[in-house]
Amino acid sequence: MYIGFSEAETFLRNCKDAVIITHRNPDGDCIGAGFAIKEILKQLGIKSRVICHDDFPKRYDFLTQGGAGEEFEPQAVIAVDVADTKLMGKYQEIYGDKVNLCIDHHISNKNYAEKTLLRVDAAATCEVIYDLAKFMGIKITKHCAECLYTGIATDSGCFKFASTTPHTHEVTAEIMREYSDIEFARINRYMFDVKSVGRVKLESRLNEMIETYLDGKLCIISVTREIMSELGMNDDEFEGFAPLTIQYENAEVGIFIRQRSDDYKCSFRSADKVNVSEICETLGGGGHAKAAGCNISGNLDDIKKQLVEAVRKAIC
Amino acid sequence: MYIGFSEAETFLRNCKDAVIITHRNPDGDCIGAGFAIKEILKQLGIKSRVICHDDFPKRYDFLTQGGAGEEFEPQAVIAVDVADTKLMGKYQEIYGDKVNLCIDHHISNKNYAEKTLLRVDAAATCEVIYDLAKFMGIKITKHCAECLYTGIATDSGCFKFASTTPHTHEVTAEIMREYSDIEFARINRYMFDVKSVGRVKLESRLNEMIETYLDGKLCIISVTREIMSELGMNDDEFEGFAPLTIQYENAEVGIFIRQRSDDYKCSFRSADKVNVSEICETLGGGGHAKAAGCNISGNLDDIKKQLVEAVRKAIC
Repeated sequence: MYIGFSEAETFLRNCKDAVIITHRNPDGDCIGAGFAIKEILKQLGIKSRVICHDDFPKRYDFLTQGGAGEEFEPQAVIAVDVADTKLMGKYQEIYGDKVNLCIDHHISNKNYAEKTLLRVDAAATCEVIYDLAKFMGIKITKHCAECLYTGIATDSGCFKFASTTPHTHEVTAEIMREYSDIEFARINRYMFDVKSVGRVKLESRLNEMIETYLDGKLCIISVTREIMSELGMNDDEFEGFAPLTIQYENAEVGIFIRQRSDDYKCSFRSADKVNVSEICETLGGGGHAKAAGCNISGNLDDIKKQLVEAVRKAIC
Repeated sequence: MYIGFSEAETFLRNCKDAVIITHRNPDGDCIGAGFAIKEILKQLGIKSRVICHDDFPKRYDFLTQGGAGEEFEPQAVIAVDVADTKLMGKYQEIYGDKVNLCIDHHISNKNYAEKTLLRVDAAATCEVIYDLAKFMGIKITKHCAECLYTGIATDSGCFKFASTTPHTHEVTAEIMREYSDIEFARINRYMFDVKSVGRVKLESRLNEMIETYLDGKLCIISVTREIMSELGMNDDEFEGFAPLTIQYENAEVGIFIRQRSDDYKCSFRSADKVNVSEICETLGGGGHAKAAGCNISGNLDDIKKQLVEAVRKAIC
């Protein structure tokens, strides 16, 4: 059932304790959202714990440093930024059909929770949570502000993507006015600009691997485990490369393919008008109009053919 | 003399016609500012012309397309985003000592104009012009909004840099609310993400050329004319590479050196705390705390030694 702020407030104020689920391959928005909700619940005197199928990447330490919370049998289950229970990984079996409240902004949200606070016009789940906290009359803490800013900035591509609205900028202005002592530019630097020497080299290598299809309208980069081990990089280090696939002026769709232990994770990006969420849905995935994904098993060459065909249908 | 909005308004409303000078190596902010002022003057029934030492790069065609204006002998001279008359290039001799109004946000502004509207807390000169238009009660046109958004976005690194304030976000929110039909994400894509195949290759090449000094605290990339001709790139195509010099986590200062016909253009970037404007001032240049520059003649190796020494003094 879709709910509004008022019902979400009622739910949060009345829960005894909660486990907060974020999605696998966690990004700034789900981590920020998870720890922001934890902080808000703490202000209400409610114990909670943030969980994720994967470890949180090291560069988010400044958000997770307070700790995810000790283990306990939760009375309430909250999912943040999780469009589909499949994205819970190992937690799907335990909590997939027990989610009481889901807070999300993905248009592909499967409406799997008992109550869903969904705002598809928000650039980030963290933007929804800011509005919710404001609605509830809760003054967010400095740490909560850091969580929310990071989620909004990362999910909007630092306010670059079409998901960025006037309201996104207004919320950001309010957060910045409230906590002028947060080093926002430093957060941005670590989220967007800082790279290890290895990553800079990797990016150069990936740029050499761009394959173009459909008269350059589709660009694909595919990274096999062989290439990963040759480069000495682990899965963790492959977040954030998808935009490389839409660098070229003619590119309408880009796909960054990364081999995992038993399948290929395909991250789609749209340069402008093409709705890649719709393409991904035909392949069993989903996401946003401009950034979506799906996971496919099989042989890489066959997968590429399948992807090219799916994109051809959508754009030609 | 430094002036406020009121005096700037009086000046603009009373000028008969004006030439608007932007700085050499024009960027989104000076081009946006120049054409925004031209648009505002047009709304007031005042003829104007935008001039620049260099051609405006092609990717700004959507801002300059109305034309820079026909030639005429101007009664008023306005400089936008020009901190120093030296930056006027060939127009320094003609207009350098005749500037009636300068609108700028650079702390290094030399106060060379008769009247200077300087707001060093603005992320862009375009942010100052938005505030000025609002103060004057002028409803900006759609084209003016595109100019101002582009200037603000490009000069703030798409809201990433420390120069971005709550007010920067508020102004942006207002512009976006007023003209929801502007394709802001498309502008951002062309300003920040789209690269030619050659540029992607060039970036990979430049990344291989990063030299580290002072225990990795300083990174330098230097591009000689030899390398440029080898790569078949012209001067125009070298804008925007300076951030590559502060990609590494340890980097505190980065310098992107580009050889020109008779000197080397050195673009400094600060990763966080170091004020590179101060360093550049010791070398005859200037700019912002986080992004500044200077031009030095001589032998490249000697120049590098000089630069390393100047940075060492500032950070060690």
